[in-house]
Amino acid sequence: MILVLKPHTSAEDNTRVESLVKNKGLTPHMVVGNEMTIIGCVGDTSKVDPRLFEVDPSVERVMHVQEPYKLANRAFHPENSIIDVSGVKIGGDHLGLIAGPCSVETYEQVLGIAKTAKASGANLLRGGAFKPRTSPYSFQGLGLEGLEILEAVKKEVGLPIVSELMSPQYLDVFNEKVDLIQIGARNMQNFDLLKQLGQIDRPILLKRGLNATYEEWIMSAEYIMAAGNENVILCERGIRTFETYTRNTLDLQCIPVLRKLTHLPIIIDPSHAGGKWWLVDSMAMAAVAAGADGLMIEVHNNPEAALCDGAQSLKPEKFDNLVRKVSQIAHVVGKEV
Amino acid sequence: MILVLKPHTSAEDNTRVESLVKNKGLTPHMVVGNEMTIIGCVGDTSKVDPRLFEVDPSVERVMHVQEPYKLANRAFHPENSIIDVSGVKIGGDHLGLIAGPCSVETYEQVLGIAKTAKASGANLLRGGAFKPRTSPYSFQGLGLEGLEILEAVKKEVGLPIVSELMSPQYLDVFNEKVDLIQIGARNMQNFDLLKQLGQIDRPILLKRGLNATYEEWIMSAEYIMAAGNENVILCERGIRTFETYTRNTLDLQCIPVLRKLTHLPIIIDPSHAGGKWWLVDSMAMAAVAAGADGLMIEVHNNPEAALCDGAQSLKPEKFDNLVRKVSQIAHVVGKEV
Amino acid sequence: MILVLKPHTSAEDNTRVESLVKNKGLTPHMVVGNEMTIIGCVGDTSKVDPRLFEVDPSVERVMHVQEPYKLANRAFHPENSIIDVSGVKIGGDHLGLIAGPCSVETYEQVLGIAKTAKASGANLLRGGAFKPRTSPYSFQGLGLEGLEILEAVKKEVGLPIVSELMSPQYLDVFNEKVDLIQIGARNMQNFDLLKQLGQIDRPILLKRGLNATYEEWIMSAEYIMAAGNENVILCERGIRTFETYTRNTLDLQCIPVLRKLTHLPIIIDPSHAGGKWWLVDSMAMAAVAAGADGLMIEVHNNPEAALCDGAQSLKPEKFDNLVRKVSQIAHVVGKEV
Amino acid sequence: MILVLKPHTSAEDNTRVESLVKNKGLTPHMVVGNEMTIIGCVGDTSKVDPRLFEVDPSVERVMHVQEPYKLANRAFHPENSIIDVSGVKIGGDHLGLIAGPCSVETYEQVLGIAKTAKASGANLLRGGAFKPRTSPYSFQGLGLEGLEILEAVKKEVGLPIVSELMSPQYLDVFNEKVDLIQIGARNMQNFDLLKQLGQIDRPILLKRGLNATYEEWIMSAEYIMAAGNENVILCERGIRTFETYTRNTLDLQCIPVLRKLTHLPIIIDPSHAGGKWWLVDSMAMAAVAAGADGLMIEVHNNPEAALCDGAQSLKPEKFDNLVRKVSQIAHVVGKEV
Repeated sequence: MILVLKPHTSAEDNTRVESLVKNKGLTPHMVVGNEMTIIGCVGDTSKVDPRLFEVDPSVERVMHVQEPYKLANRAFHPENSIIDVSGVKIGGDHLGLIAGPCSVETYEQVLGIAKTAKASGANLLRGGAFKPRTSPYSFQGLGLEGLEILEAVKKEVGLPIVSELMSPQYLDVFNEKVDLIQIGARNMQNFDLLKQLGQIDRPILLKRGLNATYEEWIMSAEYIMAAGNENVILCERGIRTFETYTRNTLDLQCIPVLRKLTHLPIIIDPSHAGGKWWLVDSMAMAAVAAGADGLMIEVHNNPEAALCDGAQSLKPEKFDNLVRKVSQIAHVVGKEV
Repeated sequence: MILVLKPHTSAEDNTRVESLVKNKGLTPHMVVGNEMTIIGCVGDTSKVDPRLFEVDPSVERVMHVQEPYKLANRAFHPENSIIDVSGVKIGGDHLGLIAGPCSVETYEQVLGIAKTAKASGANLLRGGAFKPRTSPYSFQGLGLEGLEILEAVKKEVGLPIVSELMSPQYLDVFNEKVDLIQIGARNMQNFDLLKQLGQIDRPILLKRGLNATYEEWIMSAEYIMAAGNENVILCERGIRTFETYTRNTLDLQCIPVLRKLTHLPIIIDPSHAGGKWWLVDSMAMAAVAAGADGLMIEVHNNPEAALCDGAQSLKPEKFDNLVRKVSQIAHVVGKEV
Repeated sequence: MILVLKPHTSAEDNTRVESLVKNKGLTPHMVVGNEMTIIGCVGDTSKVDPRLFEVDPSVERVMHVQEPYKLANRAFHPENSIIDVSGVKIGGDHLGLIAGPCSVETYEQVLGIAKTAKASGANLLRGGAFKPRTSPYSFQGLGLEGLEILEAVKKEVGLPIVSELMSPQYLDVFNEKVDLIQIGARNMQNFDLLKQLGQIDRPILLKRGLNATYEEWIMSAEYIMAAGNENVILCERGIRTFETYTRNTLDLQCIPVLRKLTHLPIIIDPSHAGGKWWLVDSMAMAAVAAGADGLMIEVHNNPEAALCDGAQSLKPEKFDNLVRKVSQIAHVVGKEV
Repeated sequence: MILVLKPHTSAEDNTRVESLVKNKGLTPHMVVGNEMTIIGCVGDTSKVDPRLFEVDPSVERVMHVQEPYKLANRAFHPENSIIDVSGVKIGGDHLGLIAGPCSVETYEQVLGIAKTAKASGANLLRGGAFKPRTSPYSFQGLGLEGLEILEAVKKEVGLPIVSELMSPQYLDVFNEKVDLIQIGARNMQNFDLLKQLGQIDRPILLKRGLNATYEEWIMSAEYIMAAGNENVILCERGIRTFETYTRNTLDLQCIPVLRKLTHLPIIIDPSHAGGKWWLVDSMAMAAVAAGADGLMIEVHNNPEAALCDGAQSLKPEKFDNLVRKVSQIAHVVGKEV
């Protein structure tokens, strides 16, 4: 941590700030310049709130140098984490391919999609039972009934399932029935929920908030890990920018950046990011070319009749075609579906 | 709702889309142009998901014309809502003045701040017992003990209290002890929590999410209202933009915009928005000049030693000075503190 | 400037980076921590490009400590600059009130608006002769003929004029005829034009780019000042964010921030920011309450027939009413119209 | 164009708005709903400013349905445009590979880079002679001397050259010496310059503004095309968002979106977008996987000593390696370097 003092502080001011630093258990190193003075703080700054120093009348600015996360930090865990989702490995050379409908509607619907998706190469089945909707008047998902449908299809088809948890109230049932628990963008900083996810050891798929910085996103993973569950997979699903033609802007730079900052696997969801099915193909290929550890793709047998987000769903035959192209790209970058 | 069809659709396509519209209980009105065709849909579109039509291969775009909210909509409730917070009215000509520390630390601290804030003119006392923090390693608030301190101070000083609820787990105790339940920016779309807030009738202070549009923000109020609790106050606390000198960008245009769209009162929190105490004065005055129904200001007797966000807190004497200036501005725009 | 080195750099690496710093004429001060090393650089860093150090394989990050601007910096010029626009003072206690139509259309139009605006209290007349339009097919302004109309109205009514310059080609004629030369948001970083504005001594009204940070905006003023013209007034006109209900988001926090960083006057344009006439009143009052040095308001006698941006123009009677309220607010904050 | 009227307008209001529409040469089609009325406007709306209707007191909102661009619109020009840059084709199956230093420094420097880049597979040479810099105190480029160096290297090595034009003042010399004239992000809406580019027929590389929507970007191309020059190539170089870890956020969704909206070729510049050399590889591969028509990559033989932006430059051997991987990806998507 570095404290930048205001121009022309007095010797007493400098001494007072030095004491403040010492009081927090850090060692101050003062650099006196012509026009300003800076104090480098040596020690474990990860548990010191930088804003505490900003209040001092002689402190102009506080700059963080070290990343505030430990468990998720690649610096302390140089190898890639490989997360095992009920037998399917994600991370390293293993590409995760999650496919399925936005919402669970009926057993027949999910079964049909799951069979064709598996045949195309998907290794995980997604389906929303509880749906976060902007409007209280929109379809909110089948709830527990949806989870039962997923469970039944899993028994039949053999793909582990991914589904979104919105409330601590259902943590136990998700822990029992769902193989990879998804936390949606709007709950990325639902800190209460994150802490509870640390109590179980099911893998967690943590989606990036619409306006979350890389650091905030990793800090949310750190919440889960610090509470005891290190099985976290990060999922980019688009950020909010000024551009409104697409639903969100897919930030693929996150792949090399996260690779550098953290050892956790990174999955890309091109269906939600763009909100239009005709964007999915090119963005899925781009994601794999950039080194993503997996894809999450909405597939629906009858998008025209979907109860939610049909506009961003691929039909099974289009998904099949996509998997073929993605596999070729994966081969170039040294991954296998 | 308006459907814009793709250029040069055939008569059969048009007919198929017309049927889709009718199937949703709406009446289609087709306007055939030189290069494109549009279909105006008449009926109650608030419960129809526009994305359902986007899937049709002949539909280019779907445009929403009506606001998707009903209970919060000024069109159906032309007078300003005035919310009664344990005797303090907010809305109309009544300016709410919420002051207090970011975090509850000790009884003496809160008591001291509450007394001076009340003497200066504050009519509500704020204090955080549960704190949403980006890092799991930061101070998370005193929890239930913090609520008890607030309750004790309320008994002593007589100001109703405002505090943030982060989890459904504590809804009952908040309903019992807190006069105005604050929902933070990061929980604005915690839909599960919003639905539960509709079960009680305590007033709710709903902060705007860092990247929430006006419509999304009002829809979150609609969630609470649709579930049964119409006592909602909106609170702007800054949005996230590209500018990083300030913590967030305070959007004061929200005041006239929300005034037009909804009947709910609007409070401004300049302390969180800027993140620097020296921005609070001018932004508080600006907010009242723009017609805000209230202010939420962080006040701390010893910001240098605050456990959280001292950098954005005013000292009691500065707050006193601010209230005097704000009162003069309020007088110009026809409000009274 | 502070260099943060990568974790666990060797003594040789440290020495190499130290040499780099010395080569740029700066004095390095090394602070060796447990996990990382930082080097404080003392000297005139304003002319050293920080990115030059980022290339070194041992450098993790470079942090700028000093503001990169000198002439516009309040640290070196503590008093407020007061700019004299052909006899009208802007800055300090003097509130500039710029009113007029978006586009110059006819002599009669401008004359009528100018007379009523002056009677209401405006002290400068605005009117666009050259219009920056997103579409090549939109009305582009009357050009030189527009300037002549403004000149004729100025002779008749006596208000100095403000008009936008879009190209170096017309710099001479603007220098001759226009009292305050406006540089639009889209040209804020047209560095070639900025340099040429430094060759004259007419006051310049420099609008903030839609996505310009405070620092970039001040640096554009610095371009003009460094080239020889210190008569610069800054004008906020809204920034682009995710919110699309309003045309742009008006950032009033810029007022106290710029007040701290620079001595140049700050004017607010609420008409362009919101794009809707019914937002102008409250935002104009808010701007003055926050300490703005002036306002720029679009006024049109017949907004329904305006050739451009009628939707954001006030009618003369509404403007008159606004000036009265603004004057009361100005009085509270110690300014006079 | 669709006009949405305010709720409960009277028959007279409706008639008045209908007349307004007719006066602009459009045919109105009224759709009367329960709660609101909309008017579909049929005819050539591309030259009608929608804001003209917004002023009417009965009009709530105006929605544009047709794209405002014609010449750049794929609807009127279904085949991909292939632009010939002095013999190098860009667009269709032809991948453009532009490489070279950020700034031209010396003849030897550019010559060395050009030779190795060409050997690796680059087909165009970039080099900045005039540099847009945020600070007036930063290196501004060698100017005309830089152009002469580029010309000399072109003669020696045989690669057509790409360089940035910042001012109409140098249009003639660029037209003579430069094969592909680059317009930088900050000049994307320098409309005066765009119009002048229409007077020549050199190909133009139009970079996206940091906050430009797809529509604004295409409209800037339309400016050049409407003025007579249809040889326009679009170049994405990152947009500004809340994320500051990377310099900008690279928006690769622009590739499929622009492919749909326009027939112009699309090139991606991953060097500027991220601002860090270690992001270039993965983003270049992603861009080609997503269907880009070319890449623009900064290459420098000695990034540590570069006068500008060394931090984002690849060394020649890294570039060579990248071209090999990019070629494999290009092969998968049916393009050839």
